[in-house]
Amino acid sequence: MSAPDPGRLSFNQITADHLSLAEVVEGCTTAGIQWVGPWRHKLEPGAGELIRAAGLRVSSLCRGGFFFADSEAERRERADDNKRAVEEAAELGTDVLVLVCGGARGADLARARDAVARGIEELVPYAREHGVRLGIEPLHPMMVVERSVIVTLGQALDLAERFDPGDVGVVIDAYHVWWDPELEAGIERARGRILGYHVSDWLVPTTNLLAGRGMMGEGAIDLPRLRELVDAAGYDGPIEAEVINPDLAAIPGPELIARTRDAYLAHA
Amino acid sequence: MSAPDPGRLSFNQITADHLSLAEVVEGCTTAGIQWVGPWRHKLEPGAGELIRAAGLRVSSLCRGGFFFADSEAERRERADDNKRAVEEAAELGTDVLVLVCGGARGADLARARDAVARGIEELVPYAREHGVRLGIEPLHPMMVVERSVIVTLGQALDLAERFDPGDVGVVIDAYHVWWDPELEAGIERARGRILGYHVSDWLVPTTNLLAGRGMMGEGAIDLPRLRELVDAAGYDGPIEAEVINPDLAAIPGPELIARTRDAYLAHA
Repeated sequence: MSAPDPGRLSFNQITADHLSLAEVVEGCTTAGIQWVGPWRHKLEPGAGELIRAAGLRVSSLCRGGFFFADSEAERRERADDNKRAVEEAAELGTDVLVLVCGGARGADLARARDAVARGIEELVPYAREHGVRLGIEPLHPMMVVERSVIVTLGQALDLAERFDPGDVGVVIDAYHVWWDPELEAGIERARGRILGYHVSDWLVPTTNLLAGRGMMGEGAIDLPRLRELVDAAGYDGPIEAEVINPDLAAIPGPELIARTRDAYLAHA
Repeated sequence: MSAPDPGRLSFNQITADHLSLAEVVEGCTTAGIQWVGPWRHKLEPGAGELIRAAGLRVSSLCRGGFFFADSEAERRERADDNKRAVEEAAELGTDVLVLVCGGARGADLARARDAVARGIEELVPYAREHGVRLGIEPLHPMMVVERSVIVTLGQALDLAERFDPGDVGVVIDAYHVWWDPELEAGIERARGRILGYHVSDWLVPTTNLLAGRGMMGEGAIDLPRLRELVDAAGYDGPIEAEVINPDLAAIPGPELIARTRDAYLAHA
């Protein structure tokens, strides 16, 4: 297998949730990482300039979504917040807004899934005006209540294909989809709609359903094979290392960022 | 929706893993439960007679499977053990052996899945001779490394359909499949091959990936809807309450069995 391209690595900020954006930018520069994937809750005024001044590029903005709401008032609040997310993505100079679509909460899955479809439909024209594409990220089925009722790549594609490929695509995260017997077919079907590819690893045992990810190489996922499948489907953009784990986020920033880079080069 | 039929409730023994089979049988009789689903590690000589003498019937035997092995010697050992499981099912008077197919362990998923298919193929003639059908149970994708590389109903059906419906079918456990956007289509497709239906509930939050299930009504699954789908696909056999949770298994036996019955009647 080919080695992972150092120039495609993007450091997803949640991996170092204890750091400010400025610290992440400095750490990436020091580590020779060329891309960064910021999260909205860490943005600060001038974030785009800060990143550009360091010579980094933004692979995507995490995250819009969470469309399903208990009331019409909350639904409108969510819709407005998603428009702000689109604006922030544009300001950061990325054309990809990652959508974590939101969980079922107390409702049945069908109702929540309908709400997601309507929410995306409502957001698309605004995103298009701002030159931002929406990347639906299917999350692992164990997150269906809290995080996302969109749980397979096939389901994400069913949804994305209702829209123009220039408006809506998918973000493939190895951690969320690696178990799927339909994965290979799904990745090939996603050709032309892959807006991002994320890596981390599945720890054995996994002790935390929402924040128990491992660094690349520490778990069970055959990451080189997945990367080759995604590449073979025509994706040649940045690869975000997104390793959500409080134990990792406790490591000092520069060390964690260097370790992420090394794990990417060795195992992704 | 129709109420769940009290006569279809089966008490799956793992729900009360602290009890002997004799205690479970006595508890079911007291609670007016007519079916029991024993596990192999709790079997004792005369188990079938014990159950029949109490007027109970056996809904299925848990479990065969775990086909994937690291060596040829281990593979043969597993194959022999699965033949013993077939014999035990026949002795208990049930024609259903539940297959938990085994996880990927250290290997890649495709290789482990091939091993499962070969293992079932090898077991089928022996099971047929003994009048036992093999029920492939897809497990939740979060269990793909430790428990089962078969993780969706569609995948289980792809496998089952290689065989005669009189030999191989599927066991549908609400806990394992409820998140699946293809579930409704899968249940309808399973018509004629549904060898069992299991219930428990998905707790929010879930804190244990392997043994963190909730009692029916305590979680997020719309169990009445799932039961109606399974019934509509022609299944009219026993419904096993299988609630794997060490906290529940610490409740005194008679109380736990009565509580399971009540939760089934109120929420399944």
